[in-house]
Amino acid sequence: MIASKNTEGGRAAAPSRSAGGRIVRPRPPSGRHTLPGRQAGTRRDFRGVTRPTRTSALTRRPELKDKIAPSPDAVRFVALGGLEEIGRNMMFFEYQDEIVVIDMGLQFPEEETPGIDYIIPNVTYLEEKKKSIKAVIITHGHYDHIGAIPYLLDKLGNPPIYATPLTKEIVMKRQDDFPNSPKPNFVLVKGGGETHKLGNYFSATFFDVVHNIPEGIGVILNTPAGKIVHPGEFKFDYDHEGKPRSLDTWEWVGKQDIHTLMLDSTGAEVPGYALSERIVEAELEKLFRGATGRIIVGTFASLLDRLGEIVRIAEKLGRRVALSGYSMKSNVQIAQRLGYFKFNKETIIPLEEIGKYKDDKVLILSTGAQGEPNASLMRIANGEHKQIQVKPTDTVVLSSSVVPGNEKSVQNLKDNLARQGATIYHHKMLDIHSSGHAPQEELKAVMKLVKPKHFLPIHGYYFMRWRNAKHAQETLGLSPKDTVVADNGLVVELTKNGIRMTGEEVPSYYVMVDGLGVGDVGEVVLRDRLTLAQEGMLVIIVTLSKRDGRLIKNPDIISRGFIYLKEHQGMLEEIRKRIRGIIGRIPRYQPLDADYVKTLVRDQIGQFLFTKTKRRPMVLPVIIEI
Amino acid sequence: MIASKNTEGGRAAAPSRSAGGRIVRPRPPSGRHTLPGRQAGTRRDFRGVTRPTRTSALTRRPELKDKIAPSPDAVRFVALGGLEEIGRNMMFFEYQDEIVVIDMGLQFPEEETPGIDYIIPNVTYLEEKKKSIKAVIITHGHYDHIGAIPYLLDKLGNPPIYATPLTKEIVMKRQDDFPNSPKPNFVLVKGGGETHKLGNYFSATFFDVVHNIPEGIGVILNTPAGKIVHPGEFKFDYDHEGKPRSLDTWEWVGKQDIHTLMLDSTGAEVPGYALSERIVEAELEKLFRGATGRIIVGTFASLLDRLGEIVRIAEKLGRRVALSGYSMKSNVQIAQRLGYFKFNKETIIPLEEIGKYKDDKVLILSTGAQGEPNASLMRIANGEHKQIQVKPTDTVVLSSSVVPGNEKSVQNLKDNLARQGATIYHHKMLDIHSSGHAPQEELKAVMKLVKPKHFLPIHGYYFMRWRNAKHAQETLGLSPKDTVVADNGLVVELTKNGIRMTGEEVPSYYVMVDGLGVGDVGEVVLRDRLTLAQEGMLVIIVTLSKRDGRLIKNPDIISRGFIYLKEHQGMLEEIRKRIRGIIGRIPRYQPLDADYVKTLVRDQIGQFLFTKTKRRPMVLPVIIEI
Repeated sequence: MIASKNTEGGRAAAPSRSAGGRIVRPRPPSGRHTLPGRQAGTRRDFRGVTRPTRTSALTRRPELKDKIAPSPDAVRFVALGGLEEIGRNMMFFEYQDEIVVIDMGLQFPEEETPGIDYIIPNVTYLEEKKKSIKAVIITHGHYDHIGAIPYLLDKLGNPPIYATPLTKEIVMKRQDDFPNSPKPNFVLVKGGGETHKLGNYFSATFFDVVHNIPEGIGVILNTPAGKIVHPGEFKFDYDHEGKPRSLDTWEWVGKQDIHTLMLDSTGAEVPGYALSERIVEAELEKLFRGATGRIIVGTFASLLDRLGEIVRIAEKLGRRVALSGYSMKSNVQIAQRLGYFKFNKETIIPLEEIGKYKDDKVLILSTGAQGEPNASLMRIANGEHKQIQVKPTDTVVLSSSVVPGNEKSVQNLKDNLARQGATIYHHKMLDIHSSGHAPQEELKAVMKLVKPKHFLPIHGYYFMRWRNAKHAQETLGLSPKDTVVADNGLVVELTKNGIRMTGEEVPSYYVMVDGLGVGDVGEVVLRDRLTLAQEGMLVIIVTLSKRDGRLIKNPDIISRGFIYLKEHQGMLEEIRKRIRGIIGRIPRYQPLDADYVKTLVRDQIGQFLFTKTKRRPMVLPVIIEI
Repeated sequence: MIASKNTEGGRAAAPSRSAGGRIVRPRPPSGRHTLPGRQAGTRRDFRGVTRPTRTSALTRRPELKDKIAPSPDAVRFVALGGLEEIGRNMMFFEYQDEIVVIDMGLQFPEEETPGIDYIIPNVTYLEEKKKSIKAVIITHGHYDHIGAIPYLLDKLGNPPIYATPLTKEIVMKRQDDFPNSPKPNFVLVKGGGETHKLGNYFSATFFDVVHNIPEGIGVILNTPAGKIVHPGEFKFDYDHEGKPRSLDTWEWVGKQDIHTLMLDSTGAEVPGYALSERIVEAELEKLFRGATGRIIVGTFASLLDRLGEIVRIAEKLGRRVALSGYSMKSNVQIAQRLGYFKFNKETIIPLEEIGKYKDDKVLILSTGAQGEPNASLMRIANGEHKQIQVKPTDTVVLSSSVVPGNEKSVQNLKDNLARQGATIYHHKMLDIHSSGHAPQEELKAVMKLVKPKHFLPIHGYYFMRWRNAKHAQETLGLSPKDTVVADNGLVVELTKNGIRMTGEEVPSYYVMVDGLGVGDVGEVVLRDRLTLAQEGMLVIIVTLSKRDGRLIKNPDIISRGFIYLKEHQGMLEEIRKRIRGIIGRIPRYQPLDADYVKTLVRDQIGQFLFTKTKRRPMVLPVIIEI
């Protein structure tokens, strides 16, 4: 039946030439979760140019070419995400039949993954061993640490989740959107040295760290190889004199004979110390005091500490606070319920009531400081917000950094607000934002206080982790052998005497979430999306007589994203003429081979279009035999 | 004939519902050069979300709603590009039947223009008046100032181009790639106060400015309204003591009773003064002295001054210099020919010969510091370069900033180099790059020295120009009325007594270059590309009997970028079943209406797919009647 042959429009099972003569590699059998071209060590980037994938770098690590026989008495460590990107943080430790997982985060889509909602960790390895999973430890409540929970919990056999009360609340809030995800089993923990036995071989001691969301915890994981420290994400907390607080926690950690320190590398390239939140608060207060009209503050809803501080300052200055944006409202709600925010009852007012107060008595806390198209602040900037129209007397404060990739959106946001006359302040103009990730000098200070025997940089791109490892070598005098810069999926063995990579790899390729589909967008679909975006496509429908192989009607041609054919009737006619020529030249003495005709049409029309336009649209021939 | 009906696959002439029930606006008659959705004031951004276009901000400038009657004795100024973006710089002045153009640059593609090579200025207005064009002044040889010349020169009647010798050489080099572009007519100019008469009403006096390419010039345009200063792009030049040089030029300009100062706003948000190139040079020399193996420097080939300095230091340290990358070679060639670079003959060696020298005697100057996929440095990083394989003893220096949008590519570049063991330095680690655009304090200093009566910020996004205007108001005490923040295409009138926007607008929408096509990718094509990239597409071919309207064969279905249908046979069968149902329910007592059938298939299958997957692929039904 021809219908089925056409279903995938001539998708070849063996390498074949596609439109314009490019080689299309066959789909690898296990390609469901792989990146475009991942198997070949290259991929086409968004501008249509071949670039090596990150795993192709494996070939440049000769020491890994030969696998080392695994040690039966070693603790195995693998990161399933978070080592080659920002986000998708998830890792596990394995000893015999026991596994402990730390974090289950998501990653936001990249330029190379258009149309994708999220990227989540690949848990193929863990699914097969789900009975061994004794615990999932969640270090704090940010999406790059909790976001994959509703997608993966069931696959992992719903193991107990160890988390602080606030983290639990944030996870549970998100579960509301996933009615099919199982009810999580939480074990509530707190820092300050609390220890939990996680199985026969593992136990975890938790300590408090300062991040930009409350109740961040670090873990000392007690393993048969020794004590491993994973401090989650943190920065130093400074008092009003600018002196770091809670250094005693790190000293206490350092007294425990630490085998390996794992350290967030996001800030490893950033010189110096973090800007103290005390300075941020003081700057914000100064700014707020100077504002004569309304104040609109855009920030991340996840910066719970900052939110609390802003409301506190507003209260002090006699301003009411209205919340704009779903996540802003729900996060403030959670923090209030848990007693983190203690305001007068009348301070927070419904957004609908801002008109009842004088402009200089109102502050609006809004989501969308990254220029996210549908978030509250962008709607305000675009004049699409129901309750808030910008006034020239408004002061808009963007108390956040710009996440790489969002530069243009934030520019649009600032432009549109400025066009309406508002006065705008952002973090490059004043000290009104501080990162949650410890910069270089704070990382080095922690290294010195913890005094580990081995170092394993986590979180961040290779260059950041490489820098972090260099810092450890310089600060602690560790040898390169004792500072392992692993990649996602690579197995690291920890024994009493050392740490090393075995050359073994577990699947860690992207799993993409798109709409309701989890993992159904793979290499082929993504590659097609990128090609369609670059060059568009042309469907050619050739209707032939079964009897004599002759054209029954003029070929039908549909194009999208190539050129607007209605305005190029001449080209359209030339394409039709060429197709008639191709069909006319096919010998009639043997049965029609539809695949052969498709290849002819694809190649020759592809070549013709390239010559005429220097573009290579996807050419999709369909043969209908009647 | 049905064939033609299918040609655009049911593209509706009136608003119609597309896949999944979205409203598709009809194509505006003059939409050839417009952005997606520009007419409606909104566009779908790359993440598929509706965002207002920049022109929709027009509605927020109430003072422009009513046009002002044009003054016959006013000089008219219009920017055709460069006022709402970085790049595409082109503007003109018009008085009676005389026009003077300044710059003809291109803009690099944006996230919202996938597959596009360049964006060039829209010269619809000038084409009609090409006989009036007396001169095109080119301020310097960067692509955002010269890049559109080969595309537009013919359209503008090949007017004389006023430029310095180096700028001319760079323009002429580029003309080689465009055999159909006319031979440009150059009038060579130099700074230092040289004056050229450009017509009856206009003359231009040129002065030297320091940028990061030699022979940058500024213009004092003498017009019937008064003297207008356009300094091109510039920054201060500092001596070894850190004192600014050439301030006397600005003082000299200031003595001339300047009507309006136009000032580049790219640096208006950047605090302080520019990092002196003397410091950059000293840092580079220190770094080079410390390197024990080869040195690979990645930088912009257009930073001719920097290139010269790097070669000079290499020479001093006894290193030979090899050039990698086409533009690096051709730019150094031009600068050498014009006497800008004076090296020993043996200093520059062919790239093929680097192996003949000891590693510590070699420096490689390479393009691609932005991580451009095909440029030399990326090929080195990826192990794809013919002559250069990274060694662990190599020192790689990225002497450039990161252009917004390239963060991820530069990250890949650094990661891949670091994986191979090279030691990497970039501008955030050391003072090894300085921007070519004057920051805030330098801009203010120029304002004070030039003392204009009016101020018109140019180059850069609205927020930057707004900041620049604020600086002028604060520094010079100008009123908002005397500081006009115009947008692309808006007419500004300059009379002896003032400056104002008239509310008139000339076409300034994007003209896109894609392969051989200039302007043939417009709103519709771009919107389709973005949709295809996000959601993919599904072609449904329904073959019906002309006689009784019944299905002759099972519907053919082709999908790309949606889900991999081969792995979803169940869904494929359900789609077919639904199509058979739709066709079966069509009453037979009247002739078949193909458009009606297409609408039914598009709507119902679109809705079905959305329910099943929460995705909205483009559904393209084709009806074949036999």
